[in-house]
This record gives sequence, structure tokens and C-alpha cells, in this order.
Amino acid sequence: MVSATRDRIIETADLLFYQRGFEATSFADIAADVGISRGNFYHHFKTKDDILDGVINRRLANTEQMLDRWEVSGSDPAERIRSFIHILIVNGEKIRKFGCPVGTLSSELAKLNHAAQSDAAGLFTLFRSWLKRQFERLGFADQSDEMAMHILGRSQGVATLANAFNDDGFLHREVDLMCAWLDDQISKIAAKNI
Amino acid sequence: MVSATRDRIIETADLLFYQRGFEATSFADIAADVGISRGNFYHHFKTKDDILDGVINRRLANTEQMLDRWEVSGSDPAERIRSFIHILIVNGEKIRKFGCPVGTLSSELAKLNHAAQSDAAGLFTLFRSWLKRQFERLGFADQSDEMAMHILGRSQGVATLANAFNDDGFLHREVDLMCAWLDDQISKIAAKNI
Repeated sequence: MVSATRDRIIETADLLFYQRGFEATSFADIAADVGISRGNFYHHFKTKDDILDGVINRRLANTEQMLDRWEVSGSDPAERIRSFIHILIVNGEKIRKFGCPVGTLSSELAKLNHAAQSDAAGLFTLFRSWLKRQFERLGFADQSDEMAMHILGRSQGVATLANAFNDDGFLHREVDLMCAWLDDQISKIAAKNI
Repeated sequence: MVSATRDRIIETADLLFYQRGFEATSFADIAADVGISRGNFYHHFKTKDDILDGVINRRLANTEQMLDRWEVSGSDPAERIRSFIHILIVNGEKIRKFGCPVGTLSSELAKLNHAAQSDAAGLFTLFRSWLKRQFERLGFADQSDEMAMHILGRSQGVATLANAFNDDGFLHREVDLMCAWLDDQISKIAAKNI
């Protein structure tokens, strides 16, 4: 039971940190949403930083699971990269409201000069390494990491502006452009290898 | 004298909101950095939202001045768009530390569901309208707004990842890619108009 309450606290904090921001979310906010007393709450977590650690670890685990699913469901590396690009549409409503959970947490922690900023950037690293592997399989060799960072950067920019302007049309247009960019890169490398 | 103190408060708050975030900056932080008593401070501003208004107006005015300078110093629209792309390098050190001031403020206010979010997005609109005008002059007609949003989005993504990974090499590579993209678009439209 203890660990079930702990999980509920982390799950609730994860949502509140995403929707309101880390700094703007208080212990009291989380306790109220979980529906437990502050005494019970403090039994599980002494500081907000402890909760943040739990939230980041939860996100890392969930991201790894998602990447594993894409690895299995995508019939080839290009299809898998398209799965990544399309989360912008799958999560479009949330992104327009609250931005990207990874980018906004990393940005906030960088400003707070928070020790956990590098852990939050670890979420980006998961996507980066996974994308890099897909580009390697497509034959991009030592360019693969740069390609991964390029597509990761573009998806971040789309999330920020779709959020700022609450613009769904922009989001869809940019997803199409990212997929066209991918096709174009693949054609180029195919032409080179003929 | 009254207005000089007011200006100093806004200037200081602008810097702190950028470096630490809006939510993480208190009245006391700003008063301490300006070096005035809380009584004097409250004489000028009653709420942090009033200060935020002042900060956004200051940023709008500064951005308009910068765009006017680029308008004059750039010999043609492509050169002016390159001035925009190159702020990523000019402000590279700050961006790697604190992200983009426009994007991070807009994202934070969206999460806070803050009434001033649309004012903060107005900073993006200044860049967007100015970029759109340059693309129109280059002959992109009704595609100009989409081109403006595309380049604005890419610069946002570069800022977010350069900040997350504190990566100067990535920042420079992506600036080169954005300039190459611009040249490519201009060549395409020139070919179409022959």
C-alpha cells in the first residue's frame, strides 16, 4: 500500500509539473490532488526535489517503453522516425496547451540552475540515442547523431510555437515538412550509394 | 526620479524573469537587486503582474528597435533574415544558459494559464510579421507567413536543445543549416520566376 500511494503522488506530480510548471506546483497542490493528508505525504517525500527525481525517473521509464513499442511496431527505421515525428500530432492538444513535457521541464530547471537539469536532459538523450540508431540503420553513419539532433530540435520548435499561438494548422504543416525532409535525406543517401 | 526608479525595477525584473523564470522571482528578489526598500518598491508596483506588463512592454519596444536596425543595416531581405538567424550565435552564451527569452516566457505563462501569455506571444508576432514582410519582398507571396513561422520554429528548437545540452557546436551547425535552407528556398523561387 505504501508504494501504491508513492506511485500516485509521483503520477499526480508528473501531471501538475507538466500542466503548471515545477516551481508553480506546491506540496499542498500535490497532496490536495492525491487526496491525502500532509502528514501521510511527508511520510513518502520530504522535499519537492525528491518528488522531481521520482517524476523524472517515471518519465524515463515511460519514454523507454514508448521507444521500445515504436521499435517493434515500425517496419523499418524510416517508419520508426515517422512515429517520433507524429507524436506532435498524437499529443497535439496537450502540446498546444502546455508545450512539450521534456523541453519545458528542461528549460525551467536550467533557469533554476537545478541539479536535476541534466537528469531532465536525459529524457532528450533517450530520444536522441534512439533516433541516432535509426539513422545509422538508414546508412547515415557518422552523420546520424547530427540528424537525430536536427529532427529533435525541429520538433521542439514546433511544440513551442504551436503552444505560443495555439495553432493546430502550423503543427500539421510542420509535421509534413519534417516527414518530407526525412524522405529527401533518404533519397539523397540512396542516390549516393547507387 | 520616480520614473528612473520604475525603469530600473523593470530592467532588473526583465533580467531575473529571464535568468530564473517569472514564478521563481519574488518581489523581494527584485527589490534586493535594485537596492531599494520594499516600501519604495510598492510605491511603484503593487503586484508582480504589473511588473510583468512592464517587462513585456520593455521587450516589445526593444525588439521593435532591433528589427528597425536590421531593416536599415540589411542590404536586402535575405540579408535581414540572416540577421534574425544569427541572433542565435550573437546571444549564444545566454541562450545556452537560459534559453530564448521569448520562448521560455511564453511557455511558462501558458502553463500558469496567465492572462499575459498572449502579450508574451506578441513578441513572437513582432518577429513573425517582420519575417513575413521580408519573405514577401523575396517573392514568396501568400507562402510568406508559413516561411516566417518555419524559421521562427527552427530557431526556437535550436535554442531549446542548445540550452538542454549546453551545446555550442549544435547551435552553429543548425544556424548554417537554416541559412542553407534560406538560400535553397530563394534559388527555387528564382528558378520558378525565370
